[in-house]
Amino acid sequence: MKILEERILKDGKALDNNILKVDSFLNHQVDPKLMKDIGYEFANYFKNKNITKVVTIESSGIAPALMVADILNVPLVILKKQTSKTLNNNVYTTAVTSFTKGITYNLTVSKDYILSSDNVLIIDDFLANGEAASGALRLLEMGKATCTGIGIVIEKSFQPGIEKLKKLGIDVYSLARIKKLEKDTIVFE
Amino acid sequence: MKILEERILKDGKALDNNILKVDSFLNHQVDPKLMKDIGYEFANYFKNKNITKVVTIESSGIAPALMVADILNVPLVILKKQTSKTLNNNVYTTAVTSFTKGITYNLTVSKDYILSSDNVLIIDDFLANGEAASGALRLLEMGKATCTGIGIVIEKSFQPGIEKLKKLGIDVYSLARIKKLEKDTIVFE
Repeated sequence: MKILEERILKDGKALDNNILKVDSFLNHQVDPKLMKDIGYEFANYFKNKNITKVVTIESSGIAPALMVADILNVPLVILKKQTSKTLNNNVYTTAVTSFTKGITYNLTVSKDYILSSDNVLIIDDFLANGEAASGALRLLEMGKATCTGIGIVIEKSFQPGIEKLKKLGIDVYSLARIKKLEKDTIVFE
Repeated sequence: MKILEERILKDGKALDNNILKVDSFLNHQVDPKLMKDIGYEFANYFKNKNITKVVTIESSGIAPALMVADILNVPLVILKKQTSKTLNNNVYTTAVTSFTKGITYNLTVSKDYILSSDNVLIIDDFLANGEAASGALRLLEMGKATCTGIGIVIEKSFQPGIEKLKKLGIDVYSLARIKKLEKDTIVFE
């Protein structure tokens, strides 16, 4: 997606070989117009797949995912990183280790919102090692829902996540695919 | 806001005198159309206030706040509940205790996104004890930004948050104001 790649080059910052800082427009300060453009791009790609729900992982995926869900006219389900008091025991849960953030957390979702009749589009901001996406897939499996596709805003193609998901036969659509990061240098595929 | 009150009565659930569960349309499963209606309601109320930024607290405020920011054509800034690896040390931070969730966390924001020239509209899903909103106000103060108003989706008017904010002279606009909760009973102001 050209305008996204241009924005990454303009406002993103490669801190080292691994970390791309895009917090001025994607995951800390958020540009709503860009989120809408991203929403249309994903919605257009997946429009004939009979998506019944968009699923994302709190919290950086929520902004682009909400726009996709709005355009596809389906509910958005936010997978939670811990069980809140008001979620009670009616949840599916799975442990996820984020190598990027160096933490392990429980990803949970109410059983009420993942149904065996659902064709789910997963949306997330980054794909690196694929741990969050794999956790989301496990939750969908517990609910016997179908994962129809995964939309990623920024794929770090040099990390193992994308190959892991492709091996599962999933249709992954990444809007920006990064081949290589070096301090102050960003190279797209 | 009539359609919101109707939705709360239809799909919300009072678990006890304190907890209102609205996770089927607001903070776990999210109805994007309702978020857009909420966005228009807030944007219309605050449209003449020269808002330069919408600020929310991760993660349940993001969906309504993104819609408001989109309609007002300003950036959204998401206050983070902990410092992430890529945020570095250039942050304002303040401790917040959530009585509802029984936890204390650090609320942080990059100094780059709260400026002394900003007229900020704070948007959040719930107002109960006002701890999160007060934390957001402290961060704005550290950045010498102006808080022009606070938009709340659901105000629990029987808890102290609303009085606390009004005493500060802040224009608080709540779309649904709950006078009383009892198990299976919801009473609006």
